[in-house]
Amino acid sequence: VATRDVHLEQVDRLTGLLARVSRESSAVIRQASRALLAADRDAAAAVLAGQAGRDELHREIDEVVPVLLARRQPVASDLRLVIGAIRMNADMLRMSRLACHIARIARSRYPACAVPPAALEVIAAMADTAARLADKASLVLATRDPIDALQMGLDDDEMDALETQLFILLTDGWPHGVEAAVDVAMLGRFYERIADHAVGVARRVVYLVRGQPIAGP
Amino acid sequence: VATRDVHLEQVDRLTGLLARVSRESSAVIRQASRALLAADRDAAAAVLAGQAGRDELHREIDEVVPVLLARRQPVASDLRLVIGAIRMNADMLRMSRLACHIARIARSRYPACAVPPAALEVIAAMADTAARLADKASLVLATRDPIDALQMGLDDDEMDALETQLFILLTDGWPHGVEAAVDVAMLGRFYERIADHAVGVARRVVYLVRGQPIAGP
Repeated sequence: VATRDVHLEQVDRLTGLLARVSRESSAVIRQASRALLAADRDAAAAVLAGQAGRDELHREIDEVVPVLLARRQPVASDLRLVIGAIRMNADMLRMSRLACHIARIARSRYPACAVPPAALEVIAAMADTAARLADKASLVLATRDPIDALQMGLDDDEMDALETQLFILLTDGWPHGVEAAVDVAMLGRFYERIADHAVGVARRVVYLVRGQPIAGP
Repeated sequence: VATRDVHLEQVDRLTGLLARVSRESSAVIRQASRALLAADRDAAAAVLAGQAGRDELHREIDEVVPVLLARRQPVASDLRLVIGAIRMNADMLRMSRLACHIARIARSRYPACAVPPAALEVIAAMADTAARLADKASLVLATRDPIDALQMGLDDDEMDALETQLFILLTDGWPHGVEAAVDVAMLGRFYERIADHAVGVARRVVYLVRGQPIAGP
């Protein structure tokens, strides 16, 4: 019984750590977007300063996983939680690293805004969609409701549409020069990747609940 | 004894699948670079046509993992192999998806080469470094020699230097216009990501051998 308690305690710890990481990755994406869209240097600095702590949290999860698997053989949903945790942890770490890339671009153009007027609307919409997807991933992780996860597909479709829009902007008489174009193309890519990782987290929650892996990475 | 044999068989199967995926991801990166640098449309088509099979192989590994963990509780190095497999599998899938992105850019500019003269040397060097890192990741997976893994740091440093060189090209009087600049910036990013994932695979092999996670994603 005592060992079983220790096991439950570890599972709870893992669940708690994942929830915390998901909230932090969601928050840091919003912070990076504020740094970018409002040319807010303090926000950019805060994003970058916080990464060491997020890396540490990531390592903590990676260390809990083998302990859980080795000490007690988890079964059914606990086993799926542990397997899912490895991938979700990697997804969420990437999300916060991508937020750092966004903050670095913001910082590199300060006091100007890295996003020139022609692209502001599209990039702001991408930032918003990415943040919404990150929030939903965090919610899905808390509720474990597959319906919430499936609804994320709509936001993801929106991100694809915005990517196409951005691509057209950049290839059809872009007026702001090469440097700004490269910045904006990269920003678009970073937001698209954040969205993809958020969807990945939600997918793994569905796997947790249903016990069946679903298509996709 | 029979169950133990089944267990060993599954571990062997997992090792075999990982080796196969690593060889394939290495091959597809070279094929994508040929598509890009030689404006070879058939190579681009082959890269894209092969992705369904690589996705399938990826799913196969993801399905072996929970079976292995649930049926027999693996210990020590087998446990680490199973945990590592989840992440390595994700890394190698990303590598081949990035190769597809490269092939798509190559195809979009055909019959022209997507890389204009000014960037050809840097991008070719990036392609070469990425392929070398992917080959080494595959080798490390086969030999499980941490020395091989550690030597990959040098290639990774080279990739960083090439990225800086590319950035200077793009910001210092780039003569080929916005569209080509965006293509080239994206290509640089894709090769850098491939390199990063290859280093990730090698890192996880070191973890397999040493039983200690090492710093980094």
